[in-house]
Amino acid sequence: MKLGKVIGNVVSTRKEGNLDGLKIMIVTYLDENLSDTKKTAACIDTVNAGNGDIVLLCSSSSARITPMTKRTAADNTIVGIVDAISSGKIYSYRKADGD
Amino acid sequence: MKLGKVIGNVVSTRKEGNLDGLKIMIVTYLDENLSDTKKTAACIDTVNAGNGDIVLLCSSSSARITPMTKRTAADNTIVGIVDAISSGKIYSYRKADGD
Amino acid sequence: MKLGKVIGNVVSTRKEGNLDGLKIMIVTYLDENLSDTKKTAACIDTVNAGNGDIVLLCSSSSARITPMTKRTAADNTIVGIVDAISSGKIYSYRKADGD
Amino acid sequence: MKLGKVIGNVVSTRKEGNLDGLKIMIVTYLDENLSDTKKTAACIDTVNAGNGDIVLLCSSSSARITPMTKRTAADNTIVGIVDAISSGKIYSYRKADGD
Amino acid sequence: MKLGKVIGNVVSTRKEGNLDGLKIMIVTYLDENLSDTKKTAACIDTVNAGNGDIVLLCSSSSARITPMTKRTAADNTIVGIVDAISSGKIYSYRKADGD
Repeated sequence: MKLGKVIGNVVSTRKEGNLDGLKIMIVTYLDENLSDTKKTAACIDTVNAGNGDIVLLCSSSSARITPMTKRTAADNTIVGIVDAISSGKIYSYRKADGD
Repeated sequence: MKLGKVIGNVVSTRKEGNLDGLKIMIVTYLDENLSDTKKTAACIDTVNAGNGDIVLLCSSSSARITPMTKRTAADNTIVGIVDAISSGKIYSYRKADGD
Repeated sequence: MKLGKVIGNVVSTRKEGNLDGLKIMIVTYLDENLSDTKKTAACIDTVNAGNGDIVLLCSSSSARITPMTKRTAADNTIVGIVDAISSGKIYSYRKADGD
Repeated sequence: MKLGKVIGNVVSTRKEGNLDGLKIMIVTYLDENLSDTKKTAACIDTVNAGNGDIVLLCSSSSARITPMTKRTAADNTIVGIVDAISSGKIYSYRKADGD
Repeated sequence: MKLGKVIGNVVSTRKEGNLDGLKIMIVTYLDENLSDTKKTAACIDTVNAGNGDIVLLCSSSSARITPMTKRTAADNTIVGIVDAISSGKIYSYRKADGD
């Protein structure tokens, strides 16, 4: 998986691949320091992510493993919201309460 | 998925992989600001996209999920036409009426 | 799919993955202006392509969709020969007669 | 597979794709000299890897081949801990005893 | 497929994905002139390749097509040893006898 940050939404009315009703979000990839890598993707959201959330992105055929994306044209799916990233006992990221 | 912009068509008479009758378009990948990333692909069109349209591209095995691309040698499929991209209430892109 | 140009052949006698009898060609990837992108791959040819031909390359599991590459270790297959690339009524590429 | 080094952990409570209970680690990719390539991924750990371990990463649909990642949204799995890397009789890396 | 050159071996005792008994080699990717591209991978060897051999690498789900890699966590497999690369009647590479 990759780390990403949700930065926007995509509206698309004419679409194929059983994507109707699915939320498509613009996500920028982050590196391990949560710095923007200047790469972006349009991802199906399965965890009700919001703008600014740090998320886990799953690509390739594994993007279709969730109930919501099964048999859809999903090639990159938001499969988790990141609460924290740590190295040993040191936290490099912690989601604020109420976020 | 990736964001792309349709910039041309490919004509190919001698082909394999059940691609006969499918429209193959040249698409440049766009970043979140809809700037050209200098990367291109030849994609199967399933949504009747036209030159200049901003589209959603689905790659890998998920490119074969649509009825039109099932059992074809599609590895990158245009699966949606983008109407708008927004961040909160701010629209960074809106398709013009009649486009 | 990607656009490529055939530039050579690979000879390999000791191989696995049901590749016996298949023609393996060296292809350089091209951008939308048919400029060399400095990336190359070794691809299975299913359309009897020749040196210098502009071709369509299909990768990932879709590379195994053609009858010739089914159940083979093909991850990148030449699935079409490009006759022309156009944008509206303007042709940026047309294969010469007798090529 | 790719060579990587484990540098951290991801905590994510809200997630999809049968990822509950799986350990997700931040891994930086290494080149053949075990130098950091500045690319990172969030990977499912199947071999009880620890911080600093040099590991083997398996991506794409093959990431779901292990018993632990079967039917999960894993697209990049830690499938081995590297004990040594050698070229002929020369070792460029050997895991220290007790590591 | 990609062209690569075998430059080393990986030893890993603790591993998952049915990789036991398989030979894992460090391979650097080569371009069409057989120049090093500075990218490397750890690949399963199915053709008894040796250090210095120029090989064909097959990635993604196609990496599992060989009998040796079926149902294993292989995402990049050495599927052939390259004997020669030619463009028309000109050979840019020929394996030396007894190599």
